[in-house]
Amino acid sequence: MNRLKEDLIETGKFGREPQRRVERHAELDPESGASRPEGTPANRQVRDFAVQRMKAAGLSVKIDRFGNIFGRIPGILADCGSIMCGSHLDSVLNGGQFDGALGVFAALEAIRRIREDGFRNERAIEVVAFTGEEGSAFGQGLLGSSALCGKLNRTEALSVTNAENKSLEEVLKQTGYQGDFARELDNVEYFVEMHIEQGPVLDSAKIPLGIVENITGVAWINATIKGIENHAGTTPMNMRQDALVAAAEVVSFVRRRANAIAAQYDSPTVGTVGRLEVFPNGINVIPGKVRIGIDIRDVRKKIMQHLMDDTVEMLKELESTHGVAVQVQIPPVHDPVPLSPELVQIIEAAAKKTGIPYLKMISGAGHDAQIMAGRVKTGMIFVPSKDGVSHSPLEWTDWEDIEKGVRVLTQTLKDLSVTGA
Amino acid sequence: MNRLKEDLIETGKFGREPQRRVERHAELDPESGASRPEGTPANRQVRDFAVQRMKAAGLSVKIDRFGNIFGRIPGILADCGSIMCGSHLDSVLNGGQFDGALGVFAALEAIRRIREDGFRNERAIEVVAFTGEEGSAFGQGLLGSSALCGKLNRTEALSVTNAENKSLEEVLKQTGYQGDFARELDNVEYFVEMHIEQGPVLDSAKIPLGIVENITGVAWINATIKGIENHAGTTPMNMRQDALVAAAEVVSFVRRRANAIAAQYDSPTVGTVGRLEVFPNGINVIPGKVRIGIDIRDVRKKIMQHLMDDTVEMLKELESTHGVAVQVQIPPVHDPVPLSPELVQIIEAAAKKTGIPYLKMISGAGHDAQIMAGRVKTGMIFVPSKDGVSHSPLEWTDWEDIEKGVRVLTQTLKDLSVTGA
Repeated sequence: MNRLKEDLIETGKFGREPQRRVERHAELDPESGASRPEGTPANRQVRDFAVQRMKAAGLSVKIDRFGNIFGRIPGILADCGSIMCGSHLDSVLNGGQFDGALGVFAALEAIRRIREDGFRNERAIEVVAFTGEEGSAFGQGLLGSSALCGKLNRTEALSVTNAENKSLEEVLKQTGYQGDFARELDNVEYFVEMHIEQGPVLDSAKIPLGIVENITGVAWINATIKGIENHAGTTPMNMRQDALVAAAEVVSFVRRRANAIAAQYDSPTVGTVGRLEVFPNGINVIPGKVRIGIDIRDVRKKIMQHLMDDTVEMLKELESTHGVAVQVQIPPVHDPVPLSPELVQIIEAAAKKTGIPYLKMISGAGHDAQIMAGRVKTGMIFVPSKDGVSHSPLEWTDWEDIEKGVRVLTQTLKDLSVTGA
Repeated sequence: MNRLKEDLIETGKFGREPQRRVERHAELDPESGASRPEGTPANRQVRDFAVQRMKAAGLSVKIDRFGNIFGRIPGILADCGSIMCGSHLDSVLNGGQFDGALGVFAALEAIRRIREDGFRNERAIEVVAFTGEEGSAFGQGLLGSSALCGKLNRTEALSVTNAENKSLEEVLKQTGYQGDFARELDNVEYFVEMHIEQGPVLDSAKIPLGIVENITGVAWINATIKGIENHAGTTPMNMRQDALVAAAEVVSFVRRRANAIAAQYDSPTVGTVGRLEVFPNGINVIPGKVRIGIDIRDVRKKIMQHLMDDTVEMLKELESTHGVAVQVQIPPVHDPVPLSPELVQIIEAAAKKTGIPYLKMISGAGHDAQIMAGRVKTGMIFVPSKDGVSHSPLEWTDWEDIEKGVRVLTQTLKDLSVTGA
């Protein structure tokens, strides 16, 4: 464990100013998060560090055209598909040190243990560190996994640009991380990603391990509500078309309706108005326009659609109930992704073998696993996030919980590496 | 009338880029409002223009230490108090051409007519143009009238600073509008202000004239609602402290409660949440903090207090009902100001004499009249604002309505100028 803890503490220093040892939650400074977006010097540092640790552990390291890093140990059988295990090294701005990096270094630690145990893995096992999982640099996330899986073609993936208008290709060339490895997935049998939960479920239930069965779909609804801007003092109550009064009803509706639909289907439906902007936003001016952004998620598309339909209908009804004009725009919906039931079983068995309590659960956040699941049998292991906090310098997972996660991951990789052929 | 129309069209050109003739509503360009905040070159231009017109009409012009402009014709009796009539020449940024300026040039027009009619006014009549009625330059409004009435002492008034950190005194010296006239109010008997309504009441009722009985008080409540910022996907509905869900209830409450209290007291109570800011305001982040600004007005202090108390109580209850923390801050409350019943009667009589339909009403906006009312008997005449719009390039009053207002104003000044002694 000390080895993995050291890896993660080192990782947590990249992109952090002033650099500080971060070993315990109490030592974290909320003003001093880790910033390692793809293409930054800190991102190159964490890549160099990961490659160095992989090599030190005896892995053979290759980089593909999209900057994805693969560190491999061979299996004793030549003719069977490998096991891929990992996550991403990039971070959001002012984020934490575990989001992504944990999955890469936990995979490396599991491989170290498998070797030290003298375990004879039939399948090859490879650590993967995906490029640009966060949208923090290139506006669009899951870049490396999408390119690997062919969800983005080579040109699409390499030509996305960052805030400095540099393409991913330029950035990778500049940092020395555009390789020529053409990784195919035909000979990959499984993908396993260990990740922090980024939600409060495990922490509040005091359960150290989550086995993910489904990754929720995500739908966004953007709406503009136009009323009539006017003087808050001179306009009688019955002569107003107040866009914020209408928008407030949407906020209440989404909360109430998400709860009702979750109860109706016994489903983990969530609905959130996270963005709301008022124009002109003066204390003595009746709001003339409000823009809102609504986020809807569930593990079943039908249920998401139900909440979306109800919400859009309610938005449209504001035109007659509140005399406002409503425009609705819906970006492409990300469908829910079920993970491999076979892998859920195997991870569950591994948790039982190692005596670690677990919870079968959903992931409400997006992960590289949801892309990989379209090509290979994919599973995910969660460890608790203290207070559910992530994308924040306060992100934290206790070292003991990380150790439990690594034990289950190690057992899982062992079990997967036996072909049973 | 043509004379006043010309004055107002000329006035509307100052501070407008590109300069354009603005004679009809349809010709107004919403992107091209008039900007004449105190201290700007456009403000100096409109002051120069007003002084020139006053002098051309035979008025003797004096400027006081606070930049207030007084243009006077004597009365035939020496020993009685004068009548003051006017408003302000400054404007908000990107405002209209009538707010304030109408009251100054209508007063001038009334005096011209009184003289042309050969009317023998016993009392002296003076046009006044107050400095800095809008808070657009110095953050604080009603500067000239407050200084004149002693609500601000000389140092307080002259040391307020604008965005360029220049004091009012510096600005007045620079533009040549700091005079040495020490205007006392002991020999002023009445103050009358004609102004656009800045609300929709007259326009929607198709009544050309309003006689103001009360200026509403204004109370503001600023509240900060703190919940817990978290991931909109990974945080189950029942584990949220969503600051926006709580804030939305405040918006609905203020609307509902203002309506109920208005009905309960048969009063023109208004309550508005005009300002609402969400942090961090990301579509996929549960809002962790919301700041709101609430505006409450009524003509009776007791009723304002009732709505304020109910609102603050509701805000506090959010702590138990929504698990959020609420901070409330209440700036000094401006009490309601009743205008002179004697003047209401005299203006009403003048409207009847001139055959102009009128409505007795309240002012929901603040005016110099509310300051003057603390020292002299004060009345206000409103003319309609098309669609209730003001502080906007779209601000408009039909020329025929302005003419009707001037007729009533002229008759009012005549009637007031007879002492009956």
